[in-house]
Amino acid sequence: MGKLIEPRVLKGFRDFLPETEIERKRIQGILEKTFESFGFVPIDTPVLEYTEVLLGKGGGETDKQIYRFLDNGERDVALRFDLTVPFARFMAGHRQELYLPFKRYHIAKVFRGENTQRGRYREFTQCDFDIVGTDSVSADFEILLLMYTSLKALGVEEFSIHFSNRAVFNRFLGRMGMTEKSADVLRIVDKLKKIGESNVMEQLTEITSRENAERVIDFIRPEASFEETLKKLSNLAGGDAEDTRRLSALFSYIRELGLEQHYRFDPSITRGLDYYTGIVFETFLGKLPEIGSVCSGGRYNNLASLYTKEEIPGVGSSIGLDRLMAALEELKGAAFVRSGTKVLVLCLEQKLTGLYHKMAEAVRKQGYACEVYPDAKKLNIQFSFAEKKGIPLVLICGEEEAKNNTVNIKNVTSRESFDGLPFTEGLKKIRELLG
Amino acid sequence: MGKLIEPRVLKGFRDFLPETEIERKRIQGILEKTFESFGFVPIDTPVLEYTEVLLGKGGGETDKQIYRFLDNGERDVALRFDLTVPFARFMAGHRQELYLPFKRYHIAKVFRGENTQRGRYREFTQCDFDIVGTDSVSADFEILLLMYTSLKALGVEEFSIHFSNRAVFNRFLGRMGMTEKSADVLRIVDKLKKIGESNVMEQLTEITSRENAERVIDFIRPEASFEETLKKLSNLAGGDAEDTRRLSALFSYIRELGLEQHYRFDPSITRGLDYYTGIVFETFLGKLPEIGSVCSGGRYNNLASLYTKEEIPGVGSSIGLDRLMAALEELKGAAFVRSGTKVLVLCLEQKLTGLYHKMAEAVRKQGYACEVYPDAKKLNIQFSFAEKKGIPLVLICGEEEAKNNTVNIKNVTSRESFDGLPFTEGLKKIRELLG
Repeated sequence: MGKLIEPRVLKGFRDFLPETEIERKRIQGILEKTFESFGFVPIDTPVLEYTEVLLGKGGGETDKQIYRFLDNGERDVALRFDLTVPFARFMAGHRQELYLPFKRYHIAKVFRGENTQRGRYREFTQCDFDIVGTDSVSADFEILLLMYTSLKALGVEEFSIHFSNRAVFNRFLGRMGMTEKSADVLRIVDKLKKIGESNVMEQLTEITSRENAERVIDFIRPEASFEETLKKLSNLAGGDAEDTRRLSALFSYIRELGLEQHYRFDPSITRGLDYYTGIVFETFLGKLPEIGSVCSGGRYNNLASLYTKEEIPGVGSSIGLDRLMAALEELKGAAFVRSGTKVLVLCLEQKLTGLYHKMAEAVRKQGYACEVYPDAKKLNIQFSFAEKKGIPLVLICGEEEAKNNTVNIKNVTSRESFDGLPFTEGLKKIRELLG
Repeated sequence: MGKLIEPRVLKGFRDFLPETEIERKRIQGILEKTFESFGFVPIDTPVLEYTEVLLGKGGGETDKQIYRFLDNGERDVALRFDLTVPFARFMAGHRQELYLPFKRYHIAKVFRGENTQRGRYREFTQCDFDIVGTDSVSADFEILLLMYTSLKALGVEEFSIHFSNRAVFNRFLGRMGMTEKSADVLRIVDKLKKIGESNVMEQLTEITSRENAERVIDFIRPEASFEETLKKLSNLAGGDAEDTRRLSALFSYIRELGLEQHYRFDPSITRGLDYYTGIVFETFLGKLPEIGSVCSGGRYNNLASLYTKEEIPGVGSSIGLDRLMAALEELKGAAFVRSGTKVLVLCLEQKLTGLYHKMAEAVRKQGYACEVYPDAKKLNIQFSFAEKKGIPLVLICGEEEAKNNTVNIKNVTSRESFDGLPFTEGLKKIRELLG
């Protein structure tokens, strides 16, 4: 036997132990059900793609972070770094097989060779939902409503979805003669919640006049009400236009559904990325503002322009599942479900193994997860196993009980015991104890 | 705008469109629920690992097929090619955090740069379930029972789980003085169902005497009953031993649960891989024997020996989800669920958008997936959308209906219509029509 290999994982990559993975599956299940209740359908795409396909839309930052290599056939390939680019490629490639508007969700792992010091992972799960093939405000609203519904479904009560419209901002910058610097301005403003107003002011004055910087700061500061903020923005941007009318319509829908308290018109929301053209939004948790947005996105004019001449407008949002899970754990405490098993059939006599499995089958038929301890070990070892796995009940059947066709049912925590029950009575007792 | 990029995917990689992905999620959900009903818990591991960690146990074939490269930090890394090796590494690394016996399942993608001509994919989903930390026959049986239960849960009726015990075969080969050639013999015998008995005979005579080859052929040919086969094997292997007693016990459990018709003692089952030391098994579908085994595995003495000195015995099985899905489609026809949406709220007037979303919320609260058509397009376009997405009902509300607080409900297929219903009556009608 050679030297042992150290069982290590790569930096920025993680194993998920059962407690975490059970919780992750639970959250993912709630999200999937919520998306499906709005008519979203799932798709999947490859983890590995041609680099050319993936990097088409990427900026310089992405290029450096991408996992890229030549495969055995000398193809230039890379691991996907988000789910948006593969979706664009997907839409271009399958346009003829799909109907529009098309609403898809996609929950999958993505990979970025980021600096892990900031608590970021190199492999993490994204959860995207988009509506493409329509430019309507109705779709914008549906995405906002689905974000709200998803967080509610996860039991989050205090949160605020901040939204704005990139087009109004662009008009405003145009009016100030700053169109060429708009990418820089958006990038700086995007940092507001992290670095604060005075730092934003400082950075803006590095790229424009103090007066312009002050006007930008004025623009991004929300007023007391939706209407006042809209009026100010409209004035600063040169009057009413389609973008402001869309904001009005959107807010009227929010009001009509009685959801004002969870939405906030916040002109400082810009999103860093170039491709947003309309509404943009981010979501903050009332009790954990410091973790930043847990669900963000916006409207883009033309998703798949790198791959097809057909224009495919859309609006979509993305949840970072890892960050959301961390937030939920902090808000609600760790769920700590160690398994779904409700009943453990103890092994007193190895020769009764067949009977034990038969009993376990009967318990499963009642709808309860049930397992058989495989070895006739000491009872305290078997009880300790039940405790470690979070199993509430054990079923005990030794030689004597088997002869009499009876069982004992025992509560693992309280050690309360119900002995000598005929097997069918034992099943009844299990139902009673598990509710 | 530059030249368009072709929206292609790599050879051997696939997109999953909604119809396929919905079905895949359905099947995966059934499997997860079944595994959990036996007390199996989920884990996850990284897609990317140190090559050293992954290739420890791999044979020459695996080395050639692996996706391997240097990452940006010059680490030698690779995509996982199965879920067994990462599980071994996982057990060695997390031994102190886990209880034994540990039963895990893991459903995830793996990657192999295989020749795609044989209908194989380079990215495919495996579905593994293992019990480690016990050497008992009870665990062997539980894996066999779970395979049976999983296929039943998926609606498969005709299947046969073939099993044997590698240890008996090894004793037999030892008695013939063929221990050194055992890997070759196992590899050749493993091909029996693909190439037939005469080709196996031919290949065996290339590595041993004709007499030995005939004895191997005799060994792997099942007799009429479990007992007769066991008796023959026991004789050929030099008498009763622990391995034959394990087979007897196993079969007695199968009988005790009344499942004989789905299990077959088949000494030709050897599995190609080196690491199996006890029971080995494969599963064949009655109506599709030609697709080969859909669920296979066996017992291994020491899962994690590359990474730890602690011995971790185990038994486990693996389902190739892609092959199983293809088989189910062939057996039962394509499921063809295009979405879960039950009701489409049509868009007759754009200004009623808020009301439409409010109605959709009310339908969702009844437990039915519901969506709003976002644009006031011609009604035939909206109906055609409902048909393409497989939505059975539409809810219609124009200016007139909105004024009277009524709706029309229409069956998309039959075009049967229920008009002028007050909204709460409309909800009732929806419940009635959807059952």
